[in-house]
Amino acid sequence: MDITAFFLQTRTHTKNLCKPLEIEDYVVQPIVDVSPPKWHLGHTTWFFEEFILKKHLIDYTVFDPNFSYIFNSYYESIGKRVVRADRGNLSRPSVNKVYEYREFVTLHMEALLNNNPSKEIVQLTEIGIHHEKQHQELLLTDIKYILGNNPLLPIYDASFKEHSTEDHKQEWLSLPEGIYEIGHLGEEFCYDNELGRHKVYLSPYSISNKLVTNQEYLEFINDGGYERFDLWHSEGWEWIKTNKIESPLHWHQINGEWHHYTLGGLNKLEREHPVTHISYFEAFAFAQWKGCRLPTEFEWEIAAPKFKWGARWEWTESAYLPYPQYKKADGALGEYNGKFMVNQKVLRGSSVATPNYHARITYRNFFQTNLRWQYTGIRLAQ
Amino acid sequence: MDITAFFLQTRTHTKNLCKPLEIEDYVVQPIVDVSPPKWHLGHTTWFFEEFILKKHLIDYTVFDPNFSYIFNSYYESIGKRVVRADRGNLSRPSVNKVYEYREFVTLHMEALLNNNPSKEIVQLTEIGIHHEKQHQELLLTDIKYILGNNPLLPIYDASFKEHSTEDHKQEWLSLPEGIYEIGHLGEEFCYDNELGRHKVYLSPYSISNKLVTNQEYLEFINDGGYERFDLWHSEGWEWIKTNKIESPLHWHQINGEWHHYTLGGLNKLEREHPVTHISYFEAFAFAQWKGCRLPTEFEWEIAAPKFKWGARWEWTESAYLPYPQYKKADGALGEYNGKFMVNQKVLRGSSVATPNYHARITYRNFFQTNLRWQYTGIRLAQ
Amino acid sequence: MDITAFFLQTRTHTKNLCKPLEIEDYVVQPIVDVSPPKWHLGHTTWFFEEFILKKHLIDYTVFDPNFSYIFNSYYESIGKRVVRADRGNLSRPSVNKVYEYREFVTLHMEALLNNNPSKEIVQLTEIGIHHEKQHQELLLTDIKYILGNNPLLPIYDASFKEHSTEDHKQEWLSLPEGIYEIGHLGEEFCYDNELGRHKVYLSPYSISNKLVTNQEYLEFINDGGYERFDLWHSEGWEWIKTNKIESPLHWHQINGEWHHYTLGGLNKLEREHPVTHISYFEAFAFAQWKGCRLPTEFEWEIAAPKFKWGARWEWTESAYLPYPQYKKADGALGEYNGKFMVNQKVLRGSSVATPNYHARITYRNFFQTNLRWQYTGIRLAQ
Amino acid sequence: MDITAFFLQTRTHTKNLCKPLEIEDYVVQPIVDVSPPKWHLGHTTWFFEEFILKKHLIDYTVFDPNFSYIFNSYYESIGKRVVRADRGNLSRPSVNKVYEYREFVTLHMEALLNNNPSKEIVQLTEIGIHHEKQHQELLLTDIKYILGNNPLLPIYDASFKEHSTEDHKQEWLSLPEGIYEIGHLGEEFCYDNELGRHKVYLSPYSISNKLVTNQEYLEFINDGGYERFDLWHSEGWEWIKTNKIESPLHWHQINGEWHHYTLGGLNKLEREHPVTHISYFEAFAFAQWKGCRLPTEFEWEIAAPKFKWGARWEWTESAYLPYPQYKKADGALGEYNGKFMVNQKVLRGSSVATPNYHARITYRNFFQTNLRWQYTGIRLAQ
Repeated sequence: MDITAFFLQTRTHTKNLCKPLEIEDYVVQPIVDVSPPKWHLGHTTWFFEEFILKKHLIDYTVFDPNFSYIFNSYYESIGKRVVRADRGNLSRPSVNKVYEYREFVTLHMEALLNNNPSKEIVQLTEIGIHHEKQHQELLLTDIKYILGNNPLLPIYDASFKEHSTEDHKQEWLSLPEGIYEIGHLGEEFCYDNELGRHKVYLSPYSISNKLVTNQEYLEFINDGGYERFDLWHSEGWEWIKTNKIESPLHWHQINGEWHHYTLGGLNKLEREHPVTHISYFEAFAFAQWKGCRLPTEFEWEIAAPKFKWGARWEWTESAYLPYPQYKKADGALGEYNGKFMVNQKVLRGSSVATPNYHARITYRNFFQTNLRWQYTGIRLAQ
Repeated sequence: MDITAFFLQTRTHTKNLCKPLEIEDYVVQPIVDVSPPKWHLGHTTWFFEEFILKKHLIDYTVFDPNFSYIFNSYYESIGKRVVRADRGNLSRPSVNKVYEYREFVTLHMEALLNNNPSKEIVQLTEIGIHHEKQHQELLLTDIKYILGNNPLLPIYDASFKEHSTEDHKQEWLSLPEGIYEIGHLGEEFCYDNELGRHKVYLSPYSISNKLVTNQEYLEFINDGGYERFDLWHSEGWEWIKTNKIESPLHWHQINGEWHHYTLGGLNKLEREHPVTHISYFEAFAFAQWKGCRLPTEFEWEIAAPKFKWGARWEWTESAYLPYPQYKKADGALGEYNGKFMVNQKVLRGSSVATPNYHARITYRNFFQTNLRWQYTGIRLAQ
Repeated sequence: MDITAFFLQTRTHTKNLCKPLEIEDYVVQPIVDVSPPKWHLGHTTWFFEEFILKKHLIDYTVFDPNFSYIFNSYYESIGKRVVRADRGNLSRPSVNKVYEYREFVTLHMEALLNNNPSKEIVQLTEIGIHHEKQHQELLLTDIKYILGNNPLLPIYDASFKEHSTEDHKQEWLSLPEGIYEIGHLGEEFCYDNELGRHKVYLSPYSISNKLVTNQEYLEFINDGGYERFDLWHSEGWEWIKTNKIESPLHWHQINGEWHHYTLGGLNKLEREHPVTHISYFEAFAFAQWKGCRLPTEFEWEIAAPKFKWGARWEWTESAYLPYPQYKKADGALGEYNGKFMVNQKVLRGSSVATPNYHARITYRNFFQTNLRWQYTGIRLAQ
Repeated sequence: MDITAFFLQTRTHTKNLCKPLEIEDYVVQPIVDVSPPKWHLGHTTWFFEEFILKKHLIDYTVFDPNFSYIFNSYYESIGKRVVRADRGNLSRPSVNKVYEYREFVTLHMEALLNNNPSKEIVQLTEIGIHHEKQHQELLLTDIKYILGNNPLLPIYDASFKEHSTEDHKQEWLSLPEGIYEIGHLGEEFCYDNELGRHKVYLSPYSISNKLVTNQEYLEFINDGGYERFDLWHSEGWEWIKTNKIESPLHWHQINGEWHHYTLGGLNKLEREHPVTHISYFEAFAFAQWKGCRLPTEFEWEIAAPKFKWGARWEWTESAYLPYPQYKKADGALGEYNGKFMVNQKVLRGSSVATPNYHARITYRNFFQTNLRWQYTGIRLAQ
């Protein structure tokens, strides 16, 4: 697709995702991991302004000099920023003002892109687009948390489908031992953490062709899975006990019956849907209980062409580490990926919240082991 | 004034206070002591619904059964409530919905009051009105905190005057020792904590006819007041060091010059205005530095007819304790005052944020010793 | 008594209190309020060295220059000090070394006192003696906490009696309204916070001639006292719920039967003994449940000659505040009392742990409202 | 060596390590990661009692039934245990009592081992011996922390050498790409986490033949290493800023000159010694600053025969994960390793505190990324 069209389409899609919201929904931040939707709108815009317009559009004047402070996320190289936990304390700039900011930046970007842009500008724009797509997914999961945390459990969009039942039979796919190639290949866009295609040796393994379902996870719960410390990491056990975790996030037991809150509203738990909103700790404990394990990210990448994927981000056993030839980009963009490569786990695949053109077989998503507000799921290996 | 008129006037005034707000400003809660304006609107309304309409208006159906849970503040006897620290996490009900709720309750109350109400209904309404007036003051100070905490420092109302310069000369008023009568007298409305008029013995004392000014407080700062532990309570010293407190709340040093944020915007510090937004700890340390002390609430009540007051809530040295004949009201309304009578200090007077008909010479306001977001000030005694 | 004898007797008594201890017991600090016995031994010694020997004994060389840092408690004017919470992290100086330090300072003090000491030296010594007596009581209650917190529940001294059953009948003593004189009178030693004898007006009141017993307190528990929020201050309610408080400190329910740990070991709860180890919050809630209240410290001081006291420190309803003519002493000794006069409650009387010559009818003890490790008790008023 | 001799020698060595201690040093726990020496003595003894004597010695009666509760570390399957952070709050059992306990268990073990023990007993004893050896190293580093945290900085043993200067020239060893075998081989003792010898593919790499020195680390500090966020993981940056970390643990700047506290006392920093007491975060940042990286544990294991090692535990870039065929042991011993396999980094090698017969080229040590109280060091790779 043409870069300008790709850019505009992405910008429009972000706005569309916010259409069902009340103004008030744009503002709140019930937990530190969730950002207010208003902040996502501003931050993705600031990214284009900071890294492209300020440097590459002659005579560009920033929309508001305070916005750099407010909408910077973690780029220490760019200067002071609002502490992440305080994003929900800011009522201003107003939502309307942030939309004005978006319009302003979109128009200037469009002008820049239409004026025979350099290769560097195109590449930076591509990063900006994919950055915004990442935030589109976060926007949806953050909205889900904001609404799902509200005692009124408001509906986001009654037609939103979180499920994608896999109605095929569960089977084990077997792969032989050997040296395999891992990492991004080709000219298409990818993040720096996927680069450096390299060899890994894999022992023989089997991997399931199907995600774990709510039904299976319920059996784990009913079998006392949350009460058996032998299934858990020490740190996971402490986490479930401290936080009184006894089921996936967004599950509610009402009059003895399990329900789950979805972006389509509160429903009875659908047994055949793939389980979601579980932490790595829970995914691991479930696998232990089944006498299985989670796949490594390498096993996943090699086997993925053989099964369907895309409903849930799939926890892997792999720690998030640099590939052998990994090199951080220079400057602020170098902060994008590398500085998170410790104490997190890799997730592979994509989810029902992932936007178009944002899923790749080599894509490396990553989160801390206790986080659950993304559409995370479980695929077993042996 | 007629009770219906008094009621309607109060309800309208609350709405007027919110007129300058953006929708977003109604939602946030930057610190636990501050409540979102939306919550004040709902809570004062819920008070009328819960304590009057549900019991005294035949066939009344509550506007929304969830609102009791959301807008209850601390009345443990009424059932579950949203934890205070979580008020800012609720985007719903929307501001519009809360205004609908207000309209609904106001109309039903009006109908009740116009239909020959019993004495009990009138008395409860009076409590509800004064309860709402208390929240009108909190609404203003909470709005000030919400806007003043925002890096953009938005203006609430450019014409809002926080000052009331006392341009008379500072003098000491002397009062003789003796037995004095303390507490509410007469038929007018007051809270239960003012009742039980009783005798106290006072030693001879002097009290200033003027509040401490920004200029005087600045001298305290410049003399190293925040660095001299001998001026502070042990707990106050720990508080200023832990929280890096070095000036009143809402003061900003910009290019070496002191400014203060007011509801009228950010201004240069006006030296002759009475200092405000200081904690009891700071008021005490300032008095120590001056070689004076704070008055007791009894000294204040006896002397108050002799000086002007009303610009700032004045910290007293008195702990908030029950009067000798104090008796808690029965039921949930008994939770109004008595359960806070420990580890707080009494403030007397009223402030620029206090609404009409809400100041009394016997009024006992009270806050924890570290709180500063109210319009608090200092009057010295000897 | 002669000052030298009084001094030596006090020093010896401190050592005697420690005789039943193992070396290990001198070192630990299970909660921040409790200090290791070793620290008490060092701190009371440091007081004599710092405030008397260094200034008044010619050519005196401090025992160890590091000890000022280690054994200073809170005297900010004297320089850096080990943070209170870290006292239990110091294995050195060893217990033997601290006893050497005691010997060294005792001998030098003795020499000073035997050599025709000035009036100032005698007065400072008197303060030092009473300071050590205060720590003798803390030593016992800290030892009780250290041993009582140990799963082995070791016995301190099998012959130690914590009880002093009051076997007289409970009666109400009535006192008439009037102006009374409060505060220390005469030449005997007292603390600065008792000085400034002054008038107070008391309304008529009744006060019990007997402390509340374990039996009565058990009835409060069994009647759901810890589950009825209407009996509690808001802050007290939060405190019992957060800390899961359901009985006095050192009570243990074993096979359905209540026991209490005493310095004499673990025993069945003795019903007729006065209840102890309760916080102000609990004392207040109990009084509410009984339809009574706690006395003020003034009511207590006036009535005390008419009843027996000395078994338990008695919580009063009075906040710890300065008397009308209170003036802090100059220098570091001025930190002794004044800086704690906020957010604490006064206790009157004395306890089974109070040493000889340390109880006075005007004595003002004080603690935060949630503390329970002292021998605190309840006397009711009406 | 004969199992009985090996056992007795190990037991004796533990006692020898404690010889320089005062009784008080056995008791304290200045941070949660450090255990009181008394606890190590008891815990290593309890291990033999719990897992061997209770099951395999007929008619064995436990020394004290309370000790299981007190000296259990984390074996959830064995029942209740003292919370780790509370170990330093226990003055009893006394040190003498714990030594009695050791004697008692040693004698019974000796009897068991001398009486033709089964293979299972020998294997369990071997685990117990190695378990005690692990604790011997912790004992030394915990003692160092206890003494080094004390303002008196007491000497443990003036003749203790922490250094082992590597006086050879720094060179890069190059290894070719290929498939290598990783993991334990042979019949000698090893832990379960080293088992499952398996193939890994390594890209070509170079590894230093020498540990990073204090001199080099000082250059990193002097070049502003602790102020350049681009060198740090996001989590590491937050950690150094929150904890004000600006140099390795046990370094002291005195009158402008760097010293380090060692078990031999406080000395001037010796420039040529290998740096130690740095966290993974610091090791990583240092490597970034040098333009290098840390080796993976696999690279280390393959190259280790080519260089000297044993002075410092060497941080690797590898997360602590199970080997492909890893299987937890049944029962409580299964808790030994597996449950820690998340959010920790592998360290390879051994240190000056590692006891004899406890270092192996396949040994996998592991700690959280912020811990520094072990003798950790840095070896670079490229």
